[in-house]
Amino acid sequence: MLTALAALTLATPAHADTLVDNVNGVTLDKDGKLVRFTGLVIDTQGKVKQLLDRKDKRPERPDFKEDGKGRTLIPGLIDAHGHVMGLGFQLMLLDLSETKSLAEAQAAIRQYAAENPEMPWIIGSGWNQEKWGLGRFPTAADLDAAVPNRPVWLARVDGHAGWANSAAMASAKITAASKSPDGGRIEMAGGKPSGVFIDAAMSLVDAAKPKPLARDLDRALYLAQQKLMEQGVTSIADMGTSIADWQAYRRAGDKKQLAIRILSYGGDIDNMALIAGGEPTPWLYDDRLRMVGVKLYLDGALGSRGAWLKAPYSDAPGQKGLPLLTPAQLRNKMVRASMDKFQVAIHAIGDAANAEALDAITDLTADLPGERRWRIEHAQIIDPVDIPRFAQLKVIASMQPVHQTSDRLMAEARLGPDRLKGAYAWRSLASAGARLAFGSDVPVESANPFPGIAAAISRTDAAGQPFGGWHPEETVSREVALDGFTRNAAYAAFAEDRLGTLMPGMRADFLIVEADPMLASPDEIRRMVPLETWIGGYRYYKKKD
Amino acid sequence: MLTALAALTLATPAHADTLVDNVNGVTLDKDGKLVRFTGLVIDTQGKVKQLLDRKDKRPERPDFKEDGKGRTLIPGLIDAHGHVMGLGFQLMLLDLSETKSLAEAQAAIRQYAAENPEMPWIIGSGWNQEKWGLGRFPTAADLDAAVPNRPVWLARVDGHAGWANSAAMASAKITAASKSPDGGRIEMAGGKPSGVFIDAAMSLVDAAKPKPLARDLDRALYLAQQKLMEQGVTSIADMGTSIADWQAYRRAGDKKQLAIRILSYGGDIDNMALIAGGEPTPWLYDDRLRMVGVKLYLDGALGSRGAWLKAPYSDAPGQKGLPLLTPAQLRNKMVRASMDKFQVAIHAIGDAANAEALDAITDLTADLPGERRWRIEHAQIIDPVDIPRFAQLKVIASMQPVHQTSDRLMAEARLGPDRLKGAYAWRSLASAGARLAFGSDVPVESANPFPGIAAAISRTDAAGQPFGGWHPEETVSREVALDGFTRNAAYAAFAEDRLGTLMPGMRADFLIVEADPMLASPDEIRRMVPLETWIGGYRYYKKKD
Repeated sequence: MLTALAALTLATPAHADTLVDNVNGVTLDKDGKLVRFTGLVIDTQGKVKQLLDRKDKRPERPDFKEDGKGRTLIPGLIDAHGHVMGLGFQLMLLDLSETKSLAEAQAAIRQYAAENPEMPWIIGSGWNQEKWGLGRFPTAADLDAAVPNRPVWLARVDGHAGWANSAAMASAKITAASKSPDGGRIEMAGGKPSGVFIDAAMSLVDAAKPKPLARDLDRALYLAQQKLMEQGVTSIADMGTSIADWQAYRRAGDKKQLAIRILSYGGDIDNMALIAGGEPTPWLYDDRLRMVGVKLYLDGALGSRGAWLKAPYSDAPGQKGLPLLTPAQLRNKMVRASMDKFQVAIHAIGDAANAEALDAITDLTADLPGERRWRIEHAQIIDPVDIPRFAQLKVIASMQPVHQTSDRLMAEARLGPDRLKGAYAWRSLASAGARLAFGSDVPVESANPFPGIAAAISRTDAAGQPFGGWHPEETVSREVALDGFTRNAAYAAFAEDRLGTLMPGMRADFLIVEADPMLASPDEIRRMVPLETWIGGYRYYKKKD
Repeated sequence: MLTALAALTLATPAHADTLVDNVNGVTLDKDGKLVRFTGLVIDTQGKVKQLLDRKDKRPERPDFKEDGKGRTLIPGLIDAHGHVMGLGFQLMLLDLSETKSLAEAQAAIRQYAAENPEMPWIIGSGWNQEKWGLGRFPTAADLDAAVPNRPVWLARVDGHAGWANSAAMASAKITAASKSPDGGRIEMAGGKPSGVFIDAAMSLVDAAKPKPLARDLDRALYLAQQKLMEQGVTSIADMGTSIADWQAYRRAGDKKQLAIRILSYGGDIDNMALIAGGEPTPWLYDDRLRMVGVKLYLDGALGSRGAWLKAPYSDAPGQKGLPLLTPAQLRNKMVRASMDKFQVAIHAIGDAANAEALDAITDLTADLPGERRWRIEHAQIIDPVDIPRFAQLKVIASMQPVHQTSDRLMAEARLGPDRLKGAYAWRSLASAGARLAFGSDVPVESANPFPGIAAAISRTDAAGQPFGGWHPEETVSREVALDGFTRNAAYAAFAEDRLGTLMPGMRADFLIVEADPMLASPDEIRRMVPLETWIGGYRYYKKKD
């Protein structure tokens, strides 16, 4: 019998109180009210011990003292929806997200292939034919023109389509006779596969691609952490963790190389159960890792017309997109996760997908009492009649403000004017009483949360366009924007007891920034970069002068 | 950049020195020399601080003091080769290892099925047609007679054959047209599958079997730990860890419910890399878990004639057994593991398999310098010309003394008299300078190490048979036997810097037992049970009075 299970405690190396003084400190309190302070005392566990007002007495002999020099201190930002390893691999592999035309992309592909002669496949992501103004999907021939002799396989910016050259299709044994799998589509041209594979059809090429080695995963995680710290993200919800991803997180944790806090959602039920077993994991590594729930995909994305709509696409009248799960499959997965106390996060972009997710939650609520904190990820296009249901059902709307600025023109084309009322409808959701958690969907967008805050309060893009904001009635206040990236993002992952604010007892995760985001212009906020990033009371990142 | 990776330390709850006094203490020192002591001081980290002689002064005020009442204290025993989850599932599922006839087994199967009406499949193990004196493999019809209406699937005691009833074969879609896969054999009778599947052919039925849930794994691990502690095993090399097994170990560790120390070897390269990544894991949970290497299967077992022999089986002249890897596959796997600093443990039972494993090590030694500690698991049947090569190549012979007593009659039948010279040849290997690590191969045998020690020094079975020992020239001394289950078993897993002896600085893992194994008769040793089991300075188990 286990008669003496020793309770082990994790202790940070002994330095006692740390005082960060002379700051313009900003945080929300546990109820979402703005709190200002000028000094922060951190205890030996890396938690906030005390917030100090100008007049408060300072600890007399802190073991470590930092002068904030009057700069602004804000809570570390939490990305409520990202893909940690996706970011890492984007940083490691070919990234086309900055290319502005097909020709520019082809040049980048050619150069990357030349610089990496040892790579058996050229793998990458970030292309967006809309951004290129191409008016069509690219083709295998477009890729062959850049790299004819090695497989090339490139994910679209939204991850919902892949672009292969002829060598990659040959490796994957794709021919004119290949069949589109359920939930996916092989794009055809002249009776042959064109080179583009939508949603589930991507697996046909993925299966032939060499698998990344563990050291590739470790390197990708290192790069992702570095990038997140530079951008002021101290915690991130990882939406769709695989067992290989999880093992990389644990390896980093075991070696004391996990700095960023990862709130993990298993990529479907099997990953969830294999990773966490019969219940969510404990908080690991000083609250740096936990599997809290599962991510389910109910539909695809708007750009690739995979989002599931109630009425046909305005620019493709025969298509309504695809549900990726039957009603029974969705409910079955939700029940399996919930019975074992896992949180459920449902990817739903189209209005039909959002309605179906809300219907499923309605159906199950009576049989699954307790605090479920159902999440809908993206909640992008919502039929206005469904908006009040988020609050009624206590569903968290996990949204990515920057998507609105990137998608604006595409969304207008896909949806037509009438359906834009419930598109990226932040204020409507908040006013109806729904809780908004904000994220980036990195690597679909940059992980940088500051353009997200700017978009949330202004509905304008990096160029400040359109003037006055796109559907500016859907902007939110600065408090709601900050809340979405801090307190509510923590709440959305059952982490509000330790993360998201700088109130006493919370982990001392914070940023030193150049200006006060409660006062700065949207443009200033958008360009803001952290000068310092602290996690658990330690400074992990300092911007080079 | 990661500028401040906080070094976290694990600390056991604060109790200072513990004194275990008035004991007849026995341990080997780091060189394998017997050391005796009467008191043991344990520090706050659960490590041995000091061994005390009768005349040594005791610490004046230990925080915790235990009176050994003159009983014998020995190091916790290390099983150098076992299957932790296999033991757990054996304890959870139907266990036929104690059945003495087919009829007795049929009755046990019938009873278990009746007691577990909710189980979709009846799963179990432990049958041995040799022990039943059946003179043939059992058949599906034999099983149908016990349970006709639910699938039944039972592994042979050695894990190298499976026995299915008709319902299980139907679920697995096995017909007369089914083909034996490479490395396996479907036993046939009257032109139809008989119900027994050898080695790789077991996968045909395994694929149809419902997978265990995470909570089944957690329960199995709990039962396995309990059983190991009761039997005096404080550490075990887990030979062939799967990712699902590993996750169960981590879940237990994360919840402070891992008491036993598990030295893990991945089940082939893919598991190893997925679990540990690009190098062995650190020691986790206060030295309770580490993946150190990989287990490779080069052949099967003797009982099912899967062991790969140089000359045909004496009782099946057309058969020599099966190599499960080609020479290139074996060397490729060995190189892949070794390049990433993983230790390689090769399952080799037949003399051809042992020779091939030694050949492969010879081939690779020049290209892989450094301390590899190659292991051959079982090393059961060795051509005498190959025996000196173990010491020459510094290969660890990882052997299971109890196998000799269980296999004796079967081995005589399979091998004939001439080949027995190199069978279970402990003393020959030790005299030639090889290092012996001893284990149980649990669940093939009981995990109880005391019958193993008794077998090692006497070559007699539980009934004391045969009188005077089977090939008694291969007995080893008590020191070598203890060494095999302690210091050498730790060395065999790169753990001799923390486990295996009770010298200062080592983890305080020890047993209180009824008699001194250096003096007791083989029969007394065989019947010995721990009165107490301590791990890391805590008493985890105390025998009920």
